[in-house]
Amino acid sequence: MEVQLKELKKRLPQLFSREKFSFSEEVRYAHSFDASRLRGVPEVVFFPETEEDVTKLVKLCFNYRVPIFCRGAGTATTGSSLPMMPAVVISFSKMNRILELNQEERVLRVQPGVLTGKIKEYLRKYQLFYPPDPASYKYSTIGGNVATGAGGPRCFKYGTTRDYVLALRVVLADGRVLKTAPYTLKHSAYYNLTPIFVGSEGTLGIFTEIVLKVVPLPESSYLFLVGFSKEEDALTFINRVIKFGITPSAAEFVDKTTLKALSSFEEARDLIYQLGRNLEALLFLELDGEEEKVRKEVAKVKEFLKEKGLSYLGSGVEPEIESLWEVRRCISPSLRRLGSFKVSDDVTIPRRYSEEFLRFLRRLEGESGIFVCAFGHAGDGNFHVNLITDDEKKRATVEELRKKIIKQVLSLGGTSSGEHGIGYTKKTFLSFELDEVQKDLMKKLKKLFDPYGILSPGVKVVDE
Amino acid sequence: MEVQLKELKKRLPQLFSREKFSFSEEVRYAHSFDASRLRGVPEVVFFPETEEDVTKLVKLCFNYRVPIFCRGAGTATTGSSLPMMPAVVISFSKMNRILELNQEERVLRVQPGVLTGKIKEYLRKYQLFYPPDPASYKYSTIGGNVATGAGGPRCFKYGTTRDYVLALRVVLADGRVLKTAPYTLKHSAYYNLTPIFVGSEGTLGIFTEIVLKVVPLPESSYLFLVGFSKEEDALTFINRVIKFGITPSAAEFVDKTTLKALSSFEEARDLIYQLGRNLEALLFLELDGEEEKVRKEVAKVKEFLKEKGLSYLGSGVEPEIESLWEVRRCISPSLRRLGSFKVSDDVTIPRRYSEEFLRFLRRLEGESGIFVCAFGHAGDGNFHVNLITDDEKKRATVEELRKKIIKQVLSLGGTSSGEHGIGYTKKTFLSFELDEVQKDLMKKLKKLFDPYGILSPGVKVVDE
Repeated sequence: MEVQLKELKKRLPQLFSREKFSFSEEVRYAHSFDASRLRGVPEVVFFPETEEDVTKLVKLCFNYRVPIFCRGAGTATTGSSLPMMPAVVISFSKMNRILELNQEERVLRVQPGVLTGKIKEYLRKYQLFYPPDPASYKYSTIGGNVATGAGGPRCFKYGTTRDYVLALRVVLADGRVLKTAPYTLKHSAYYNLTPIFVGSEGTLGIFTEIVLKVVPLPESSYLFLVGFSKEEDALTFINRVIKFGITPSAAEFVDKTTLKALSSFEEARDLIYQLGRNLEALLFLELDGEEEKVRKEVAKVKEFLKEKGLSYLGSGVEPEIESLWEVRRCISPSLRRLGSFKVSDDVTIPRRYSEEFLRFLRRLEGESGIFVCAFGHAGDGNFHVNLITDDEKKRATVEELRKKIIKQVLSLGGTSSGEHGIGYTKKTFLSFELDEVQKDLMKKLKKLFDPYGILSPGVKVVDE
Repeated sequence: MEVQLKELKKRLPQLFSREKFSFSEEVRYAHSFDASRLRGVPEVVFFPETEEDVTKLVKLCFNYRVPIFCRGAGTATTGSSLPMMPAVVISFSKMNRILELNQEERVLRVQPGVLTGKIKEYLRKYQLFYPPDPASYKYSTIGGNVATGAGGPRCFKYGTTRDYVLALRVVLADGRVLKTAPYTLKHSAYYNLTPIFVGSEGTLGIFTEIVLKVVPLPESSYLFLVGFSKEEDALTFINRVIKFGITPSAAEFVDKTTLKALSSFEEARDLIYQLGRNLEALLFLELDGEEEKVRKEVAKVKEFLKEKGLSYLGSGVEPEIESLWEVRRCISPSLRRLGSFKVSDDVTIPRRYSEEFLRFLRRLEGESGIFVCAFGHAGDGNFHVNLITDDEKKRATVEELRKKIIKQVLSLGGTSSGEHGIGYTKKTFLSFELDEVQKDLMKKLKKLFDPYGILSPGVKVVDE
């Protein structure tokens, strides 16, 4: 059957009031990009206010075979919310309410369009905490976070988004509504469907309600910013701390090449110079939890630091902690100084191979003359590898390097994405990563949930 | 196609050495029961030593359409490992090795036949901890725990088995091997297949390797055993503690009817009498973690106890803690004193309805003259409801009561199983619990993974 976009557009004004959809060029344009460099202009932007709006629209799209893409705040790095063919984009900007907090059970029910930062802020009033913290959390939505399985610095201790989703209401491709699990803390009756949707990037169903587990707000926290004169030592230091039984809430690594860019960045420079002039790497090590526990762990880490003769800054009080984290946030803008062409991945490896992986990256950097940055969530083995150059002619080399890196990651038992998902930009990698059995099951699952392929077509699937 | 059991039995001695399979009556009999009262005698018992043994067998079974049931230690309460038709039972007793501990990443790789208690013991040497603790953990296997999504007292704080399985190697119905996820701490590349298998009760695939996340061993713990003169007060007390921000590692409830049985049990009686003579309920409240944190929480709980004038026993040192837990372990044997006919379920409700649910159960008990016990993991809203009578004529009434209870549970937004799974014994409930969309997807998923229905046929699926 053919895509009947015209029919769909005819039916929309009959079924929905004017403010629920738009064909205007401006609105369509505003929904045509995300944090990747891709572009995809929708034919229609739809603004549901209720689950019923979504089911009605999806049933129409199903009948007319019109593709649907879902959009939270458009912060994905992979293009996953952008249509590459005539399609409807559903914007969840009007489904942005916190529905219910159950304090005793520590369960929060929200709509997909709520900003994750708003959830954190709301919970703080009740001394509760939703830990996942992708860099974008202040301006990305929980629906988008669930769709990508978002992570963040605090995930080594607390786990990623998938560890906090108890249940979902999902509109299926044919417009039926699936409740993925009972809203209880435990269940063992049905097949556990919730996690299939977490990280599915819009390809299996559309969320209309998200039930989250939340935890008590940690009583106190302490942040170390440590300087290393040899970059590998920062990675070894993490292992030292963890092996001792300490679970840092964050262990963020800044590698040599990234540090070069960061040191030239005004907002970060002064703090970094306090640590020393000839540093190769930084480590943000955050400890959190009950006050006395943090105090003891801080003492232990200081002992380790002294042992190794490492310089550090540290604080357990709020404005200071934030100002240290500010250095971390300067990484992305500072990288632009290394060159105008930048490709970014978020590979993840078993952490034990971190040092080996870093040496491999440095070899590639030396051979290629392309900047290779590898900062990020070293506690999880999740590195944001950025390849940067100013030399237009080296674009092809960059793509070659990317492939080499992914192949190395896979040979170490790693994965092409730790938290950003695949979207369009990492599909080649997915085809390297999956074996025949995995590809077969991925395809069959997709077919089961989306028989006509109308949900985010082209996203995440392996091309043949 | 027909089941060709004869052909299979002919092929086995050609393909496998003698110690890997058995047709003997004794061996078959030994594999014909579990902790339910069901019986199911297999035609063949197979004892694989490697994944290759499993794939070879499963390919044969697939070709000859012979049903396969998997068996760990046979402690399921639902009959899920028992064939109700000519079938092969795979016993994992020889695939019982701990394969690899990665201390830095806190990842443990094991074979399915390892006893969960052995895993706990092994990890303790490294100051590490695998938290899920079903009552059977000393003699049940990790493979069985994963297959049922097992829980236990410590799951309120630590989560259930599903929160600890990072990845699985699974032999599919056609004998192909699926690796469900990369062996990394984070991943967002493929559809997250691991959790579909956790709690699938052998109906979707056969585990040959299990990768577990483990956590640091808590530094200290403290156990309270509190007596209540009104049973509902015990449930309210849990809310009080949690709302204050304390997360007990266990909150185990002993209701009025259960306490009656327990108080007449020699091994438990003396301790209970120390708490008072006219008690209606007990609460086991365990706190664990860093020493100072536990000390503070213990002080706070003692304050709450004093406020309410409640009597309690408490200890933070090991042999004493164990002797208090011993009372909890006396529950099951003591219940037999209430009557010879006993039906047990493990319903779970949103905890906020616990008091209301308990009142409902007492009404049923009063009307029916059947003992209604409701002890268990009250922190999770997970109650082990046991219906007990000595009156043979009341069996039908018991079944009626069960249905009424499940319907009440479902109307409160609960589920028929928190941790035991469905097996055969709770299939009727599953058909009450699932709506049409859920039933449809359950069936389609089953069909996708097991097109000829050879994996544990009859288990967990909804009958039409």
